[in-house]
Amino acid sequence: MSFSKIQSSDITFFQSLSDVRVLTDEENLKRCASDETEDLTYLPEIVLQPETVPAVSQIMRYCNEHNIPVTPRGAGTGLSGGALAIMGGVVLDMKRFNKIVNMDMRNLQVTVEPGMITQELQDFVKEKGLFYPPDPASKGSCFIGGNVSENSGGPRAVKYGVVKDYVLNLEMVLADGSVIWTGANVLKNATGYNLTQLVVGSEGTLGVITKIVLRLIPAVQHDMLMLVPFRKAEEACAAVNAIFMAGYTPSAMEFMERDALEWSMKYVQSSGVSLPDDIAAHLLIEVDGNHYDQLYKEMEAIGDIVQQYDIDEILFADSAEQKQMLWTLRRKVGEAVKSNSIYKEEDTVVPRAELPELLRIIKQLGKEYGFESVCYGHAGDGNLHVNIVKGNMSDSDWNEKLPQGIKALFKEVIRMGGTISGEHGIGLVQKEYMNIAFNDIQLGLMKQIKNIFDPKGILNPGKIFLS
Amino acid sequence: MSFSKIQSSDITFFQSLSDVRVLTDEENLKRCASDETEDLTYLPEIVLQPETVPAVSQIMRYCNEHNIPVTPRGAGTGLSGGALAIMGGVVLDMKRFNKIVNMDMRNLQVTVEPGMITQELQDFVKEKGLFYPPDPASKGSCFIGGNVSENSGGPRAVKYGVVKDYVLNLEMVLADGSVIWTGANVLKNATGYNLTQLVVGSEGTLGVITKIVLRLIPAVQHDMLMLVPFRKAEEACAAVNAIFMAGYTPSAMEFMERDALEWSMKYVQSSGVSLPDDIAAHLLIEVDGNHYDQLYKEMEAIGDIVQQYDIDEILFADSAEQKQMLWTLRRKVGEAVKSNSIYKEEDTVVPRAELPELLRIIKQLGKEYGFESVCYGHAGDGNLHVNIVKGNMSDSDWNEKLPQGIKALFKEVIRMGGTISGEHGIGLVQKEYMNIAFNDIQLGLMKQIKNIFDPKGILNPGKIFLS
Repeated sequence: MSFSKIQSSDITFFQSLSDVRVLTDEENLKRCASDETEDLTYLPEIVLQPETVPAVSQIMRYCNEHNIPVTPRGAGTGLSGGALAIMGGVVLDMKRFNKIVNMDMRNLQVTVEPGMITQELQDFVKEKGLFYPPDPASKGSCFIGGNVSENSGGPRAVKYGVVKDYVLNLEMVLADGSVIWTGANVLKNATGYNLTQLVVGSEGTLGVITKIVLRLIPAVQHDMLMLVPFRKAEEACAAVNAIFMAGYTPSAMEFMERDALEWSMKYVQSSGVSLPDDIAAHLLIEVDGNHYDQLYKEMEAIGDIVQQYDIDEILFADSAEQKQMLWTLRRKVGEAVKSNSIYKEEDTVVPRAELPELLRIIKQLGKEYGFESVCYGHAGDGNLHVNIVKGNMSDSDWNEKLPQGIKALFKEVIRMGGTISGEHGIGLVQKEYMNIAFNDIQLGLMKQIKNIFDPKGILNPGKIFLS
Repeated sequence: MSFSKIQSSDITFFQSLSDVRVLTDEENLKRCASDETEDLTYLPEIVLQPETVPAVSQIMRYCNEHNIPVTPRGAGTGLSGGALAIMGGVVLDMKRFNKIVNMDMRNLQVTVEPGMITQELQDFVKEKGLFYPPDPASKGSCFIGGNVSENSGGPRAVKYGVVKDYVLNLEMVLADGSVIWTGANVLKNATGYNLTQLVVGSEGTLGVITKIVLRLIPAVQHDMLMLVPFRKAEEACAAVNAIFMAGYTPSAMEFMERDALEWSMKYVQSSGVSLPDDIAAHLLIEVDGNHYDQLYKEMEAIGDIVQQYDIDEILFADSAEQKQMLWTLRRKVGEAVKSNSIYKEEDTVVPRAELPELLRIIKQLGKEYGFESVCYGHAGDGNLHVNIVKGNMSDSDWNEKLPQGIKALFKEVIRMGGTISGEHGIGLVQKEYMNIAFNDIQLGLMKQIKNIFDPKGILNPGKIFLS
């Protein structure tokens, strides 16, 4: 496909639209040239900030007619390069779509625009006594629209599910500018194909989401948090499964290899956790519920289960501050790793019980292909983030040998019944591995679906699929 | 599209296949000519009962090449005519696909073939201490594959969600005979488009499902059941919302208009429930959980909430037999209504809080268009089954005036943010109303998706879409 470069006539057109800010200054172009993925930079030709659905519609219709690529952008916290305008053209910066459209207390539903910060949405519904559970590590800055586009998870997915489990209906602008709703605001729906779930996780390649209807649940009153230090990392993974098999469903079960926690402590300059030399990994375990006494018992029972492994003393967070500190350490691991070295992050996910085996394989492949990794993630979901740090690796090994190692890793993940992205999406940086997860038939169906929604391929081009 | 009639050469081919029973006898053709939808009859030309995936694949490839329509069939308990071979050709009777393929206790997942009876699947996993919640009224006879194809719900959807919330991955045979998996056996997935959720609820129009991977949850230990008689039906609907707003999530909240319960009692020859003259409707409310004392308190609290309405004495089921009796009465309403009169069942669903308004509108439209209705269903989900009984209605009113009334009803449902089928699907009998739920753009996207999966349109032709 061949796209047009932005002409001055295009800029004039965009400037003529109501409710659109047209930005061509270097600062804004640079701001939209990167996200949180490695160190990638792709300068867009222009940044548009629409504020209304008709504005988005007019932009899309025009760009579709003129073969101008459009890359929708949330807060730019993505980890697969999904928001980067790799073929130039327009970055559609959705930050002005930041309002609550309707808070439906009678039906426990909220309709929100995609540019609202996830944490703000969570706080807003919490004040109403309600709970929107999915909370990616970047929740303080990421947008809900990005979460929907990547089908984000976060720590609480283990008990409460991921974004797709909360999205009831979406308003979206198609490539040609037409505006549709994907479904209805109902809990049960057997009316035609599920366009809503097709769009969730489609990474801005099928349309521009302009409204999101989410179901909410009643707020949960209590939670308790414990940090369990393991002397063997694989035992930490094994403990995850033992806890489930005993009938408990914690609201979070986060795994951190020693380096992950150590780097994060340095990064946030915290000394709140002691880290004896013989500790290889931690599990951060949260339980929540409405009955304090029962939660306490549950916490004790989980404590008993992990005692069967080779662990050091469990830290029970005994104040809101201590909980906050532990969660901050966990949430900052990604940034800490990034600040420490050039890195690549792989977002593996396997059936939960395969975690110890996955960890063993990662370390073995590291030896084989010469890479060091720091692993952490949502152990309760089988979702392990593998941060491969460049460290002393030569550029040629990094560029040539490492991708072979990643391929080998992904093949193992698929063999275990898993897949190559749990919550970060494929975007730009993982598309070369899509043919490990899917064969030509599956990829063919997906590409044809893309073609239906966006026949000219102007929407977030160069993402998900290799060609 | 024009399809070929079955020739003797086709029969010879089918007979040459391993693992396929070829049936052309009248009894089998008649058995597969109807489902539980009204009194429809469409005789297939041939019934094939494959037992293996390669057999399904060979059948599909052949039929695709020879333009022979293929209608996949489960247990024939559907309520929208989805399993009827309205264009003749092959009925693909999946009853021999009735095995558990893999019970993965380590990951709380089961892989099952589509022809297993839902109740048998539930019993199988219950013996392992696990729970597969979705339970349509027909669970004793319906197949899990049919449930997946219709995205069925049932009473417990209010707390536990519908089929789509449990399907992780599907193996399916496409129209051309190729076999794919739609996803991976994981709880989180951000890898390409969600083909799994696209296929759930697609009513056999996109492929033939041959394996289903379901996530399971730990079994729940206790449940309690109460039947609340209301003197005003709209108050019963209002009470549903009051219970949620007070922070309770019952595991079932079933609404039955007086006639529904009365007819069901006659039908199952039960006298277990007293039915004073002034009672207009009932709510059947179940709570479940692992802590008996708390459940008891919850039950009492719900009892207090409903006392604010004009109700008669609450019946608390105090034995397993009484619970069974009440659930039987609820489950048999559909059959009871069917045995009582010619009828049409509409499967409306609205945001839960709109239920009282929906009921009011149904009765008002009944007066306007001259129809009587018996309403019941899953009030907790806003999913109300409207059984329109022919009674004394003239044939011409039934055939001409009634569809206008149904259209008016569906327009109101859409206006309330609801849709025209919550769990029965569109199939044959509701397709003429699809343009009330969706506009040409939405329908166009869906039809193009159908065309990708099944370019010659041989899979369950004439369903979901008018043309």
